[in-house]
Amino acid sequence: MLLIPTLHLDTLNAASQHDFTTMLDGVYEHSPWIAERAWASRPFRSLAHLKHALAQVVREATVDEQLALIRAHPELAGKAAVAGELTAESTNEQLQAGLTHCSADEFARLQQLNADYNARFGWPFILAVRGPAGRGLSRTEIIATFARRLLQQRDAERAECLRNIHRIAEIRLDDKFGVVPFEGNQILEWADALAAHTEGTGDNGLDGRPPLTLTYLTPEHQSAATQLQIWMRVCGFDEVSLDAVGNVVGVYHGSDPSAPRLLTGSHYDTVRNGGRHDGRLGIFVPMACVQRLFQAGRRLRHGIEVVAFAEEEGQRFPATFLGSSALTGGFRPEWLELCDAAGISIRQAMQAAGLSGEMADIAALQRDPAHYLGFVEVHIEQGPVLNSLDLPLGVVSGINGSARYAGEAVGVACHAGTTPMTMRHDAALAVAELALLVERRAREDLTAPAGPSVGTVGILEVPQGSVNVVPGRCRFTLDLRAPTDAQRDAMVEDVIAFARSVAQRRGVTLTLKPTLRAAAAPSDPAWQQRWADAVSQLGLPAFTLPSGAGHDAMKLHECMPQAMLFVRGGNDGISHNPLETITNNDAQLCVDAFMHLLEKL
Amino acid sequence: MLLIPTLHLDTLNAASQHDFTTMLDGVYEHSPWIAERAWASRPFRSLAHLKHALAQVVREATVDEQLALIRAHPELAGKAAVAGELTAESTNEQLQAGLTHCSADEFARLQQLNADYNARFGWPFILAVRGPAGRGLSRTEIIATFARRLLQQRDAERAECLRNIHRIAEIRLDDKFGVVPFEGNQILEWADALAAHTEGTGDNGLDGRPPLTLTYLTPEHQSAATQLQIWMRVCGFDEVSLDAVGNVVGVYHGSDPSAPRLLTGSHYDTVRNGGRHDGRLGIFVPMACVQRLFQAGRRLRHGIEVVAFAEEEGQRFPATFLGSSALTGGFRPEWLELCDAAGISIRQAMQAAGLSGEMADIAALQRDPAHYLGFVEVHIEQGPVLNSLDLPLGVVSGINGSARYAGEAVGVACHAGTTPMTMRHDAALAVAELALLVERRAREDLTAPAGPSVGTVGILEVPQGSVNVVPGRCRFTLDLRAPTDAQRDAMVEDVIAFARSVAQRRGVTLTLKPTLRAAAAPSDPAWQQRWADAVSQLGLPAFTLPSGAGHDAMKLHECMPQAMLFVRGGNDGISHNPLETITNNDAQLCVDAFMHLLEKL
Repeated sequence: MLLIPTLHLDTLNAASQHDFTTMLDGVYEHSPWIAERAWASRPFRSLAHLKHALAQVVREATVDEQLALIRAHPELAGKAAVAGELTAESTNEQLQAGLTHCSADEFARLQQLNADYNARFGWPFILAVRGPAGRGLSRTEIIATFARRLLQQRDAERAECLRNIHRIAEIRLDDKFGVVPFEGNQILEWADALAAHTEGTGDNGLDGRPPLTLTYLTPEHQSAATQLQIWMRVCGFDEVSLDAVGNVVGVYHGSDPSAPRLLTGSHYDTVRNGGRHDGRLGIFVPMACVQRLFQAGRRLRHGIEVVAFAEEEGQRFPATFLGSSALTGGFRPEWLELCDAAGISIRQAMQAAGLSGEMADIAALQRDPAHYLGFVEVHIEQGPVLNSLDLPLGVVSGINGSARYAGEAVGVACHAGTTPMTMRHDAALAVAELALLVERRAREDLTAPAGPSVGTVGILEVPQGSVNVVPGRCRFTLDLRAPTDAQRDAMVEDVIAFARSVAQRRGVTLTLKPTLRAAAAPSDPAWQQRWADAVSQLGLPAFTLPSGAGHDAMKLHECMPQAMLFVRGGNDGISHNPLETITNNDAQLCVDAFMHLLEKL
Repeated sequence: MLLIPTLHLDTLNAASQHDFTTMLDGVYEHSPWIAERAWASRPFRSLAHLKHALAQVVREATVDEQLALIRAHPELAGKAAVAGELTAESTNEQLQAGLTHCSADEFARLQQLNADYNARFGWPFILAVRGPAGRGLSRTEIIATFARRLLQQRDAERAECLRNIHRIAEIRLDDKFGVVPFEGNQILEWADALAAHTEGTGDNGLDGRPPLTLTYLTPEHQSAATQLQIWMRVCGFDEVSLDAVGNVVGVYHGSDPSAPRLLTGSHYDTVRNGGRHDGRLGIFVPMACVQRLFQAGRRLRHGIEVVAFAEEEGQRFPATFLGSSALTGGFRPEWLELCDAAGISIRQAMQAAGLSGEMADIAALQRDPAHYLGFVEVHIEQGPVLNSLDLPLGVVSGINGSARYAGEAVGVACHAGTTPMTMRHDAALAVAELALLVERRAREDLTAPAGPSVGTVGILEVPQGSVNVVPGRCRFTLDLRAPTDAQRDAMVEDVIAFARSVAQRRGVTLTLKPTLRAAAAPSDPAWQQRWADAVSQLGLPAFTLPSGAGHDAMKLHECMPQAMLFVRGGNDGISHNPLETITNNDAQLCVDAFMHLLEKL
């Protein structure tokens, strides 16, 4: 272990460019120009600010400079290691990842991957081998990540290398500053432990754990709820309970019993084979805050009520947002009769789980908005925006309204060799035109005042298509979302009008059956500003973005002001997937931001 | 039965417009304007010419006039029948179709169909109830046709009504002229009888017969070959034999033994659940000609050799054109080892069918081009062109060259709600662009000197697509055809270049794997002219069109001059389908055209 004196932000802020660069030597591999340029951004208000400034320098560098930075890194467990070319930091990291203890097979596989990767991209593979939790990735995880990234697009892979370099730099800076993201680590540990409650079967993931599936009111779901209650008690919540729909509710009292509470939380159910942060992060972050307050013996004026919603994803029963609907009075009595694939109704499932299944008990869960300040929710972004901008946090401007359609085009199936181009009624070409129009139309809203729209044709299929048959049928779906209902409706209208015209022009029948329509839920401006202030206090830009996915906040929006905070997801923001990931540092920033928000209530 | 004096063409040609119109009264229901206008096209060289001129008048009429013609017809077995509004002709036809003997259920179903049809199109359903053979359709066939056409596009259905009106008029004219298409009827009877040899299982068709499947060297295929030999002997062929690959070969000697023969024929195997005219018509038409010569005791100078090819469709074994390849010397020895799904090789199948399976015997089938004038082939068009133009016959300018590709686009699958439009790599949109480019590019060749190209994306699929996931993968196929190899290759080049550019622009990987490449086979100009002359002699325009599908003539093209004659297919030219159909009159015109060609050798 190398002994390096701990750095302080004040020292750095006061340093000359030369000293500054020297103090940050080794943070970015053989690339002093990054620290040199970042020096101009002093004074740094936080370590997060410094990290962001360094990443900004790389973002603003030329592609050649970025490639030089990448090429300054040794090959992973490669010849460089043998030749002793590793920096002290690199050696330390590769040791922690166990890469110096590869089996002969693993070493051969890594050598092959290095060769393939170099042949494809012309630069060495960069991976922050200490991983998102900072504890080191397993060799299996490293090899799988390597193989996966070998298939990426060139520009995407270059960006991913740079992001890994920033993560390496972040861990090195934490080491230099002697900083440990304790609460961030705890959140990742909670996430891992809660993921052990799973109905998921099949091959274990790269981390050796089974896939994560947790659907409403299964035995595993109940044991997860029990686990959450135990943790809440340990954190210091004053009241912890399981409510009539299976929500876990923890209350940390305020000093003023008559003061309204802050409501927060997110869901603990998952999609099938999902990620371990989706929903759960929004439970763990306020849990960590309450723990900090409790451990410090502090009470804020306002109480904090954290709800771990039992159901949001609509996986087991044909209904969604069961947990948050109960709080808004939107849980419909007829939902109790909805059945899962095995024919078990929600009521039966509730009773089997020890809940009453009585509508009266569910109706009693409705919250009186007068008793609450509002609702805030922390959530993993589930998209690529923050990740691509090297931003740990983003303030949500609102949840997009959406409209979905199941579509079908019917033309005339005919012989691809014998039917002249002028006599065709090709169903697939009609849909191809429509899909491109959807893209074009959504892009027109890129600079819309309320924020951009998105539009997607996700299902596209010529049923029983054949190489030599002109498509007579084509099935497809439309998914259109925008930050306001008006903006969404304008897009829907244009898309439908175009569908009508393309159908007429091509002599095909185009049907669009509405399957979903959800209202937009713009963030309450005052609460959005509170999140922005909290992020700014961390020394980070208060970047604002819309939420393309639906969240529990969308439901609470119906009865009280709400606003969300997003945290960046790694792996290009993938979600609903085992590759979903966040770092311990980002989780820590969430806790810090939430604390700032609490302090200002 | 009404007694009407038989009409003669000379009488008609000499008549005043008024008399002409009177003589044709009742041919087109309550629409004397059609005959009035057709009168200007005298003199008519044939009944076919008259029919064509009448159809041309309707083609050139306004849409309102066409609709008035359609609306001049009574509803099928509807209220009109009850109210006694049928013309003498209509009553006669509906009687023949048995529509006056409907069950209560059938009558109720017809009434419902009439109501639905009227509500949809606003005109009565028109069907030539005497059908393609002139013998009358069954009530089941009528009801099924009704239900099928109810789903058609409006313009397509209007055109189909007019075509049925022309068919009704054709049958009425035949009655007026006392003309019976004997050889056309015989060809339809041969087609029905040969279709009784089938491996097809499953529900019987609308005509009460099992589906037609006849693949190489099955027991049913062998019994069909035996049937063909019997018929050829009955027709008067001098030599009839089964050759080493299962082709049935009939030779009708010429008067000059040293004169080269005319080679003709087509295949008698079928696709699975295919049509009864595909291939077979090209055997039956020259059989009917030989029968006519034999019955008249006539010999032409040149011998006629009719080959019923045993295999063309490539259904049982992974090879095609086995029958015609043997004649060109293109049958490869290794094909004998190719196996069907049950593991039986071609050699084993040959031996089981009583053939030697010896390559030497197959090689001996190769024809010496010096002994032949050339090869001609009659075939159902298998496309919509002739049908849409109201033309019974078409002269083939050549068989298109083709190129096929299996394609895949790989982008990045991501959340449809959370991924901004600017950060997507949508695999399906890349393919959508490519599919539309293929269409645009093929259309550029509409007026190409050698004839138009066609291009099709037949398979198009986002595997495991989901409404809220941006497509990360898209599977598709390309099928590109053109009358010359150079024209095809230019199209292929443009399509590949576009694929490359769209892939780059969208950041997706687009792969195109070639799966088939077949050379174009332009018709021999002199033989094409002989077909054109033969068609003209019937009083019909010698309309020329390319063949988009492959045919045995494509193989014979390798060793001798060839040209094909197409006959129109009903039901929009559908083929490889039980709905494939031709009329007895069109079959008769084929025989007459073939005879004209024979007379001019």
